Amino acid sequence: MTKIPTLTLVGAGPGDPDLISVKGVKALQKADIVLYDALVSTELLNYAPVNVQKIFVGKRAGIYTTPQTDINTMIVAYAKQYGNVVRLKGGDPFVFGRGHEEIDFAKAAGLATVVIPGMSSITAIPTSLGFPLTKRGINESFWVVTGTTRTEELSKDLYLAIQASSTIVILMGLSKITDIVRVFTSAKKEHTPIAVIQEGTLATQKIAISTIAEIEKTIQVREISTPAIMIIGEVVNQHPDAWVNKISTQMWIDACNSGCSGMTCDF
Amino acid sequence: MTKIPTLTLVGAGPGDPDLISVKGVKALQKADIVLYDALVSTELLNYAPVNVQKIFVGKRAGIYTTPQTDINTMIVAYAKQYGNVVRLKGGDPFVFGRGHEEIDFAKAAGLATVVIPGMSSITAIPTSLGFPLTKRGINESFWVVTGTTRTEELSKDLYLAIQASSTIVILMGLSKITDIVRVFTSAKKEHTPIAVIQEGTLATQKIAISTIAEIEKTIQVREISTPAIMIIGEVVNQHPDAWVNKISTQMWIDACNSGCSGMTCDF
Repeated sequence: MTKIPTLTLVGAGPGDPDLISVKGVKALQKADIVLYDALVSTELLNYAPVNVQKIFVGKRAGIYTTPQTDINTMIVAYAKQYGNVVRLKGGDPFVFGRGHEEIDFAKAAGLATVVIPGMSSITAIPTSLGFPLTKRGINESFWVVTGTTRTEELSKDLYLAIQASSTIVILMGLSKITDIVRVFTSAKKEHTPIAVIQEGTLATQKIAISTIAEIEKTIQVREISTPAIMIIGEVVNQHPDAWVNKISTQMWIDACNSGCSGMTCDF
Repeated sequence: MTKIPTLTLVGAGPGDPDLISVKGVKALQKADIVLYDALVSTELLNYAPVNVQKIFVGKRAGIYTTPQTDINTMIVAYAKQYGNVVRLKGGDPFVFGRGHEEIDFAKAAGLATVVIPGMSSITAIPTSLGFPLTKRGINESFWVVTGTTRTEELSKDLYLAIQASSTIVILMGLSKITDIVRVFTSAKKEHTPIAVIQEGTLATQKIAISTIAEIEKTIQVREISTPAIMIIGEVVNQHPDAWVNKISTQMWIDACNSGCSGMTCDF
């Protein structure tokens, strides 16, 4: 075989398959085999040639179907057998993912490597919902943390971020919501607006907008589950539905149950 | 005219024209007129129909060619005259841009509005360079700050961010580099690795990698100018060129001048 064994790591974007980059599409078109994750739209696989194998190596609902070490080994074996392995990962492959570990492993095994960035949900989800992460006159920074740390504890950096004007973005933090609420409440920030978005940019998207004090109830009512992103800060009030912050969750539920019209309830 | 006056705000991505999204391309194909910024590759204009006007409304080197108020007025006037105004902005249109103000103005004038997120340079540039913003065992968060605040001062959030384990990303901060160095040095963080990247993801890209203590010199040697992004923190050592952190800038300059081979000098 004359093909150079290659790992091409491609970011699939935040969910909506049309949010992949043109460069990502071109990479898929040149794939000799595709390994894809759970958070990747399967529509994207149609960009790869028909006769090319597409192998699911993701995890769903926290259950690892393929351990990371197996993925690394598969990448190297397939690259040597077929040539160009396109590894399709959700969002951007280097943002809170293990893309960098895959590249390191592939390089150590002598593979050529290419990394094509993807659109991260961190910025794409609030933008697609119509509000910015920062806004002149409100704040000047945003801070991004993962809720899932190696030690299973909330990052200590959160205690600093909470003192800043920053919008706080938490990925993979839904299972830590009670701890997050406690941290904000202890700092007397229970009235801070928060948006929790499941499957942002997809047709199946669900959103809960509330305050820290009421968000756990709102998440329950809206039946939000993983994967979800949280955005905490005054900019959430820029969302078209932000009026819900000004009334109680119970009033919102009552309004929805009584069949209020428009996007707020249907969102 | 039967067309609905519409503002379609489209993120063009970080620089490389192939990093626009498929959705952005489709929006351009449906444009009745295009208004584009300075940081947008003009290659992207080819996606719009040939007979459609493409108007430059950007600023270059801090000189405003078109004031924001004029852009807002143009959007509304053109939407009423032509129909669908595609407003093409660099990166993501809501990240430290004034996209949200344009949407607010357009809505108030009765236009329909659509926002298509773009890939932000914040994540795309480090990914394309081969290093992640966070890495297990190094840190768990990153903090994004604009160097250009309304008051012309460094954001106070930086003083909190510097105490965290976060990687710090500063956009539009090159003119504040002396102040930034002073803040880190005062906190005894002068050995922190820093990468400054001009025109990331483009063929014209330039990069300076150094420590806080030596970065001003490195920027000068590498002739880095705006637009540039700064990434500060231990993850910069994950960059393939990070060995330059371990030697002095002078040694690096000497090595370059003596014609060392490979990507480090040619990067």
